[in-house]
Amino acid sequence: MHAYRSHTCADLTKSNVGDAVRLSGWVHRIRDHGGVLFIDLRDHYGVTQLLCDPDSPVFAEVEKLRSEYCIRIDGSVKARDDSLINAKIPTGEIEVFIRDLEVLGASAELPLMVFGDQEYPEETRLRYRYLDLRREAMQRNMTLRSDVVASMRRRMWDKGFREYQTPIITASSPEGARDFLVPSRQHPGKFYALPQAPQQFKQLIMVSGFDKYFQIAPCFRDEDPRADRSPTDFYQLDLEMSFVEQQDVFDTIQPVVQGIFEEFGQGAAVDAHWPHISYRDAALWYGTDKPDLRNPIKMQDVSEHFRGSGFAIFAKLLEQEGTEIRAIPAPTGGSRKFCDRMNAFAQKEGLPGMGYIFWRDGENGVEAAGPLAKNIGPERTEAIRLQLGLGKGDAAFFLGGKPSVFERVAGKARTVIGDELGLTDQNRFAFAWIVDFPMYEADEESGKIDFSHNPFSMPQGGREALDGDPLEVLGYQYDLSCNGYELISGAIRNHKLDTMIKAFELAGYDEAEVRKRFGGMVNAFQYGAPPHGGCAAGIDRIVMLLAETANIREVIMFPMNQRAEDLMMNAPSDPTSDQLMELGLRVIPQE
Amino acid sequence: MHAYRSHTCADLTKSNVGDAVRLSGWVHRIRDHGGVLFIDLRDHYGVTQLLCDPDSPVFAEVEKLRSEYCIRIDGSVKARDDSLINAKIPTGEIEVFIRDLEVLGASAELPLMVFGDQEYPEETRLRYRYLDLRREAMQRNMTLRSDVVASMRRRMWDKGFREYQTPIITASSPEGARDFLVPSRQHPGKFYALPQAPQQFKQLIMVSGFDKYFQIAPCFRDEDPRADRSPTDFYQLDLEMSFVEQQDVFDTIQPVVQGIFEEFGQGAAVDAHWPHISYRDAALWYGTDKPDLRNPIKMQDVSEHFRGSGFAIFAKLLEQEGTEIRAIPAPTGGSRKFCDRMNAFAQKEGLPGMGYIFWRDGENGVEAAGPLAKNIGPERTEAIRLQLGLGKGDAAFFLGGKPSVFERVAGKARTVIGDELGLTDQNRFAFAWIVDFPMYEADEESGKIDFSHNPFSMPQGGREALDGDPLEVLGYQYDLSCNGYELISGAIRNHKLDTMIKAFELAGYDEAEVRKRFGGMVNAFQYGAPPHGGCAAGIDRIVMLLAETANIREVIMFPMNQRAEDLMMNAPSDPTSDQLMELGLRVIPQE
Repeated sequence: MHAYRSHTCADLTKSNVGDAVRLSGWVHRIRDHGGVLFIDLRDHYGVTQLLCDPDSPVFAEVEKLRSEYCIRIDGSVKARDDSLINAKIPTGEIEVFIRDLEVLGASAELPLMVFGDQEYPEETRLRYRYLDLRREAMQRNMTLRSDVVASMRRRMWDKGFREYQTPIITASSPEGARDFLVPSRQHPGKFYALPQAPQQFKQLIMVSGFDKYFQIAPCFRDEDPRADRSPTDFYQLDLEMSFVEQQDVFDTIQPVVQGIFEEFGQGAAVDAHWPHISYRDAALWYGTDKPDLRNPIKMQDVSEHFRGSGFAIFAKLLEQEGTEIRAIPAPTGGSRKFCDRMNAFAQKEGLPGMGYIFWRDGENGVEAAGPLAKNIGPERTEAIRLQLGLGKGDAAFFLGGKPSVFERVAGKARTVIGDELGLTDQNRFAFAWIVDFPMYEADEESGKIDFSHNPFSMPQGGREALDGDPLEVLGYQYDLSCNGYELISGAIRNHKLDTMIKAFELAGYDEAEVRKRFGGMVNAFQYGAPPHGGCAAGIDRIVMLLAETANIREVIMFPMNQRAEDLMMNAPSDPTSDQLMELGLRVIPQE
Repeated sequence: MHAYRSHTCADLTKSNVGDAVRLSGWVHRIRDHGGVLFIDLRDHYGVTQLLCDPDSPVFAEVEKLRSEYCIRIDGSVKARDDSLINAKIPTGEIEVFIRDLEVLGASAELPLMVFGDQEYPEETRLRYRYLDLRREAMQRNMTLRSDVVASMRRRMWDKGFREYQTPIITASSPEGARDFLVPSRQHPGKFYALPQAPQQFKQLIMVSGFDKYFQIAPCFRDEDPRADRSPTDFYQLDLEMSFVEQQDVFDTIQPVVQGIFEEFGQGAAVDAHWPHISYRDAALWYGTDKPDLRNPIKMQDVSEHFRGSGFAIFAKLLEQEGTEIRAIPAPTGGSRKFCDRMNAFAQKEGLPGMGYIFWRDGENGVEAAGPLAKNIGPERTEAIRLQLGLGKGDAAFFLGGKPSVFERVAGKARTVIGDELGLTDQNRFAFAWIVDFPMYEADEESGKIDFSHNPFSMPQGGREALDGDPLEVLGYQYDLSCNGYELISGAIRNHKLDTMIKAFELAGYDEAEVRKRFGGMVNAFQYGAPPHGGCAAGIDRIVMLLAETANIREVIMFPMNQRAEDLMMNAPSDPTSDQLMELGLRVIPQE
């Protein structure tokens, strides 16, 4: 017999009754039923009930077991009484009578219980991660993550993509965040950087003629603390293709991501239609470029109805350039109580409030109510109702001013309204491609033009488009939004050197600067660069959605805490003076 | 029609004759046959012959094309004349007459030709890696690497293993090499380290109850230059299992590795029998713990035949303690010329020479020849011949002294003899498990005891074994040797804290030191650690064997040069003063 086990703790069923078996695992729970000890023995695969009474030659040793001892037992399989059968687990029909016991690893008193649902501070969980990970939810999250990544790979291979590894110790790749630096010992005073993304390398792989690339790629960014991201690194399903247009990338990645959500979504509906929404429309309709389409509410511009109306605040606002009035329709939200609560929400978010109208039964059918309706009169109110397609029992909220000022709150209000009114389908994954991102944006104060997203994207219209107003230039750049999160970001790249130089010039970088910062890629583009494009999907985020958690540390095996410390391994720590000497570095004493 | 291609450059066959097609790719080669231009158009998948003559509306533009221009053409498929059919490529029956042309990416003068076999200095190849990678051999090596890694993953999944990612920004993991350090911005003066291997993390994954782990894992070591290794990082197929003994690990990994060699070995024989050879026997028989078993030569201890013999040098040697005489049998090597050449080889390697005997036809059948045979006489020579199983036309070489002094040269001589005599089967992969490594070794000069290999391995005999002579203790530690290379290294781990503390104590590390250096793991072992073990296979090395190259940079997409520089991306480079300030570091000026 094998030294440790003839079966796993999920294997034994009624068909094994009478067998002599050997199991190994952890003592999950011990119950003493009047001199008979019941032990739930747990391994990665499941739980098997063991029992032991004074008839067993090892009863005395079994009595000494404590939670989380790792043990090996020999025993015989017995059928449980019908009344004791546990239909919830595969081994629920049997139990194993212990005839021999070996303690493989004893356990000290536990700082964190594996059995049960007790909650612990995150610091405790991270310091004793190996205990935390034994818990059922963490075992499930980690195997989910592994299975999602494996499925991604299978799906990419099936589409003719190969995975190529790009360097991890490399040069700085300015992607907008801070680099992690790695001092060089062989070249003291010089530093490598960990890649913020394999962006330049995957483009170079295309220039190298590989046609299709993907990678489950670690990306390193020295980020300030935030709950939903790791302060050090994250993983992307990164892909790139040559000789493609935007729609080719969509057609490639949609089946992969949709398939993942269908495979691991536990029966939630997965939208097969992924609408394309322009960045501009997304802002108007949803107040965000990461709209949650499970929420059916679509905001609308209703400025016309307020221009010159009796509602002086809005009427005056509209006299200023660049202002708008937007409506958030709220079907079934037609009660004063609800409307007042939403108004209070807007005030909490720093706005003066949200005007509203709601519609109720009146003498002549549907009647508009609320102070705003009174101010603008029945004709305008009715026009608004018709535009928004609302009826009795519904409401609408209004925000006015410069969209850039209120859009964020409008988007939040839309979410809250959808949630509170139960309009947002919780058990569904809804996707949308956000397209036509502007290439540039102007700084609110200085007016200075800078890239609004990825500087490597191809401007729509190519080189000629860069001769007009930069703020009018759209890029072949796209995001995938799912349930309010950005899951994917990508672009058709700018592979034409002259177009790239011009694009950077508009953002204030001269050619010398571009050559200095992106020398590898700029040089490469001189030698027959193919048109190419791709995208990167956030793996941590996808697993978080599938695991229904908002904390990224629930889906990472050994995460840093929010102060970027590994409490279990004690990182970061002091270097030795030999190490510093070899690297040619001195630590500046902190005050 | 698609913007760039209706087919790849490997797709078109006779069945497409008459079709209007669109192709994209690179101008591989241009030939001008009296006003008719023939262009080999290349993409990742293959080559298609294009032709163009003055009848084409774009003849003038086609005339301007140069090597490595990236182009898109429209054209019509024509059958080639029977005499011009190229049976070597899938598209060899057709050619495409160019009717339209678009230059997607022009090319400057090439620093490195893609077409042809011209060799370039490695610095040129690395600086223009994107051109180098377009060459056929590099395309083949990179897709081979990708396919090998993909196959490893498939095979591991099929065996019930899941891949779990371990941290890359983490704590120092003392594995004998230098760490790469990463300064922390949030904790100025403190440093993270890149992992030399996921050793501690995979053991922690076992303590966390995951049972089976694997990872295609990047390992980071700040190594001094050497041709056959990367100065920064390499990749391992890393695996670990709980509740296993040594043989379980062998049974798991053998089918994976054997399968890989069968799948990608291009018809070379792949041994299915992997013998277990003790470290001690490997040293005796092969003079190395990485024996090449394609070479049938097995060395033997022949000391007895020389003790008190007329060959005074060896007879005297044997009077000293710890000395031995070993024979290298050389079947078919029985000529004075060959024997003298081997003797000269040994002298070149710094030994006084190798004594030899060879056997030829004599008056009474087989006759021993050579000076050594005369010295020890016919009886002893015959006994040696019988022990070594040699006959007419064969030879044997002899080395004497302390094995530690001559073993390395003996091993080399065995290799040279096997190669020169054609005994070594070149078209075969031969594997052996080297087992029973000693846990400790004594420093030759100081006599100080230290770990000879992995300090985390379980000593054979467990805790009790550590009470005797440390130099007698063997570990459950193993290597896989293939064709003279170490492909895999692994061990059953020491999961018992008291045994581990004792094992370190013997090597001169007290408990406090162990807790300081390996705190994460030591703490974890207090809470029910399971028995576990595993191994790691060197991916770069496996791909090198399969690609038949001895240069690791041939199987890495974007390698560093031997001075640990990335010439293409310009790494390492100077940090900005802002970066240094944020990290709290100062660079010490170098003299």
